[in-house]
Amino acid sequence: MAVSHSVPSLPAETRSVRNPQLGPNGSLTHLLTLEGLPAEVIRHILDTAVPFTSISERDVKKVPLLRGTAVFNLFFENSTRTRTTFEIAAKRLSADVINLNIGASSTTKGETLLDTVDNLVAMNADMFVVRHSQAGAPHLIAAHLNRTGRNHVHVVNAGDGRHAHPTQGLLDLFTIRHYKRDFANLTVAIVGDVLHSRVARSLIHGLTTLSTPDLRVIGPQTLLPTAVQSLGVRVFHDMRAGLLGCDVIVMLRLQSERMRGALLPSAGEFFKHYGLTMEKLALAKSDAIVMHPGPMNRGVEIDSAVADGEHAVILPQVTFGIAVRMAVLSILAGN
Amino acid sequence: MAVSHSVPSLPAETRSVRNPQLGPNGSLTHLLTLEGLPAEVIRHILDTAVPFTSISERDVKKVPLLRGTAVFNLFFENSTRTRTTFEIAAKRLSADVINLNIGASSTTKGETLLDTVDNLVAMNADMFVVRHSQAGAPHLIAAHLNRTGRNHVHVVNAGDGRHAHPTQGLLDLFTIRHYKRDFANLTVAIVGDVLHSRVARSLIHGLTTLSTPDLRVIGPQTLLPTAVQSLGVRVFHDMRAGLLGCDVIVMLRLQSERMRGALLPSAGEFFKHYGLTMEKLALAKSDAIVMHPGPMNRGVEIDSAVADGEHAVILPQVTFGIAVRMAVLSILAGN
Amino acid sequence: MAVSHSVPSLPAETRSVRNPQLGPNGSLTHLLTLEGLPAEVIRHILDTAVPFTSISERDVKKVPLLRGTAVFNLFFENSTRTRTTFEIAAKRLSADVINLNIGASSTTKGETLLDTVDNLVAMNADMFVVRHSQAGAPHLIAAHLNRTGRNHVHVVNAGDGRHAHPTQGLLDLFTIRHYKRDFANLTVAIVGDVLHSRVARSLIHGLTTLSTPDLRVIGPQTLLPTAVQSLGVRVFHDMRAGLLGCDVIVMLRLQSERMRGALLPSAGEFFKHYGLTMEKLALAKSDAIVMHPGPMNRGVEIDSAVADGEHAVILPQVTFGIAVRMAVLSILAGN
Repeated sequence: MAVSHSVPSLPAETRSVRNPQLGPNGSLTHLLTLEGLPAEVIRHILDTAVPFTSISERDVKKVPLLRGTAVFNLFFENSTRTRTTFEIAAKRLSADVINLNIGASSTTKGETLLDTVDNLVAMNADMFVVRHSQAGAPHLIAAHLNRTGRNHVHVVNAGDGRHAHPTQGLLDLFTIRHYKRDFANLTVAIVGDVLHSRVARSLIHGLTTLSTPDLRVIGPQTLLPTAVQSLGVRVFHDMRAGLLGCDVIVMLRLQSERMRGALLPSAGEFFKHYGLTMEKLALAKSDAIVMHPGPMNRGVEIDSAVADGEHAVILPQVTFGIAVRMAVLSILAGN
Repeated sequence: MAVSHSVPSLPAETRSVRNPQLGPNGSLTHLLTLEGLPAEVIRHILDTAVPFTSISERDVKKVPLLRGTAVFNLFFENSTRTRTTFEIAAKRLSADVINLNIGASSTTKGETLLDTVDNLVAMNADMFVVRHSQAGAPHLIAAHLNRTGRNHVHVVNAGDGRHAHPTQGLLDLFTIRHYKRDFANLTVAIVGDVLHSRVARSLIHGLTTLSTPDLRVIGPQTLLPTAVQSLGVRVFHDMRAGLLGCDVIVMLRLQSERMRGALLPSAGEFFKHYGLTMEKLALAKSDAIVMHPGPMNRGVEIDSAVADGEHAVILPQVTFGIAVRMAVLSILAGN
Repeated sequence: MAVSHSVPSLPAETRSVRNPQLGPNGSLTHLLTLEGLPAEVIRHILDTAVPFTSISERDVKKVPLLRGTAVFNLFFENSTRTRTTFEIAAKRLSADVINLNIGASSTTKGETLLDTVDNLVAMNADMFVVRHSQAGAPHLIAAHLNRTGRNHVHVVNAGDGRHAHPTQGLLDLFTIRHYKRDFANLTVAIVGDVLHSRVARSLIHGLTTLSTPDLRVIGPQTLLPTAVQSLGVRVFHDMRAGLLGCDVIVMLRLQSERMRGALLPSAGEFFKHYGLTMEKLALAKSDAIVMHPGPMNRGVEIDSAVADGEHAVILPQVTFGIAVRMAVLSILAGN
């Protein structure tokens, strides 16, 4: 199989409808990608998430903001973890949640994606959380809703192919801001399989928009997009050089299919060069934070001593992820 | 495989308990089939559904009618679409919904259907929404509950084999009444694979009970039940002749297994003779409505120009389907 | 395959953390096993369950005790029946329920069990209901939570390998106490495949703790643990002798894989020797009750005449099971 090394981008038919996520007055109608999302919209989401972090610590973890609202989890690709975070976020807002694992249903019956969507809109859905293995699927749905005058129904991209995973990007931004206050003086390194990572792509767009001055990607040639510099990042193939002076280190998950493929010699070899150990971590600033989108491959991209150590903010990322998703759903619902 | 062309009917062992759906005073205890359901009961369901159509348009799409009531979706056969419509209907009534995909559980452990039901009744279920690949399964459950003095637990047939799909029939009737006010002067044509369609069967019973004067089925000999005239319909093999002067056209889904089988030459051939195009639609009345139970096979039984055109009321059917199911659940619960 | 006839016990690595279920003040923090659970804790659970039995009979089957609490059903092994009872119990307490079928998700992505748990805790889970094919998994989770100072998150064992199924044991105790008032003078026989039954094991521990004077197990040598007497029970290979004078008979499910294996000659042979018939039942006391954890194999371990007869309390067990699980969840949540 030929491996594409270009920066993943949307297929041609979706490019013309690339940014249907903002309404005429600039307010958020859908959340599809952090690419092109204005800094003030990103900041508004992050600010809205702050008070939601405390709801999750209360005994009664619920607010009635979305009572009677129907949130459909439309998962064309299985992802228990992401589906669960959205389900919890929606339930904490008192929404009614309908989980649809679409792989096994209508699309196998020959119905088109947009017919499926039209049917669910006809059931008076208020919001779709969409996960799809194909880049651009959430865009197509959002553009279809806009075009047919039904943008009171909102789409949230929960991961589409190698394209984007905006709520993960937002929770990463939230976490960085929480620990580092400000993006103005930060050095951030994203390490590992950037090529196949929608997480990396969304975070790069977010950090760039928020004017992070020193943004680096670290990885072997085979796992970096060829024109990655065009996104405004510096490229390092030597992890030690790349980690020097970093405030934030974002480790990416190495998917096991990469390890079996031609892109990498072996998991052990990868760990030697690009796995984060305490020794390599010492090259970063002494108060550096270590992030990971999960699930982790301990001993492949990250050593357990780091994963469980005091620099890791991997579990707080998960907690903030609920608050950020509550913020997104709540903003889209007009609250 | 020999193909049965007789009108699908319940197996012998269920025939004696054929209509256990009405209580001694004639009120609805279970909803199993539209066959033999009195016109006043059908009209009561349709009337009850009317105000529920507006709940779905409100911001808070919920009424507390079924609060604390446990609705079990007992799906012995997978159907995400139908399960979802019942789940939404129940949640809008504030019921607690428990989804059980039974194929993968108790019945594979050798437990009998009625033992499974008894167990769920012992968990204080209030209502069962039953989908089963075998005709008569919901009847057996309802008859068992009646016989054992537990008819405070209600059964709704959500599709059983080729036998019946009464809530689909009711939403079809609701849609027709919504657009045509009255059944007294209507010409209704049902087109396509009537032989394998529980949707067609339920709708024919409903339209007959409500005294629709001119009811037609249109399809090739191989896809019509042999004695279909006995149900009170006129048979057309020529679609153009059958559509002449129609007020309502109900297109049926052609299941892909039929296309691969011996019953049909090819999908293209079927479309040529029995697919609904704008040109054929012009033979019906100028204000005719086009219905389809979904999911559609565009280009097989219906042309996209018709499916997306102004005569189509296919998406309103879905919306009305929620209201009709809310009405059924609410009537059964005694509200 | 060599068959272990020893009393099932936890693997070595979990033995050191064997009883992490009680807090420092002796209150229930997790429910992992009835082994070693003090009589007063068991009695408190049973007493708490009593008023919950009436909630299930009300029209509105809900109390707000766990409103805003997040209960995660963590099922690493599929069990629709058990999952459903916990889901109903949690919903009747107004909790938010998240169902996770973990087999198909993170663990297949190489994440460790405890990483999965840490992630869910980071989503602010309040309670885990854990089903796992491996004995000790719920213990490991509970010990991990205790060790990391997060015992405000509670674990309920919903069945772990051949080890324990404490809520089933508790509902059995509740049922016996309901019909027999007191354990002080009872003769209880547990019949069938004791070797592979976590249900039997949990019940034996519970009955022993509550000082049941005459506790018997009945079964063929091949289906009894070798050192079963050490648990404080009398062993019978002759069912007729074992049933003499019993107040309570607990029939165990014979799993079909046993019937196909080398442990048993055939299902028919098993029924002849160890199936409960009306004739054998007559050897017990005239007011004996017959219990079964379900799902039943009619004609294998129990005759239909007995299963549906007046001595059977099999369906009341199911009903009491909801109340007992409500009690456990409610006590753990601190109510």
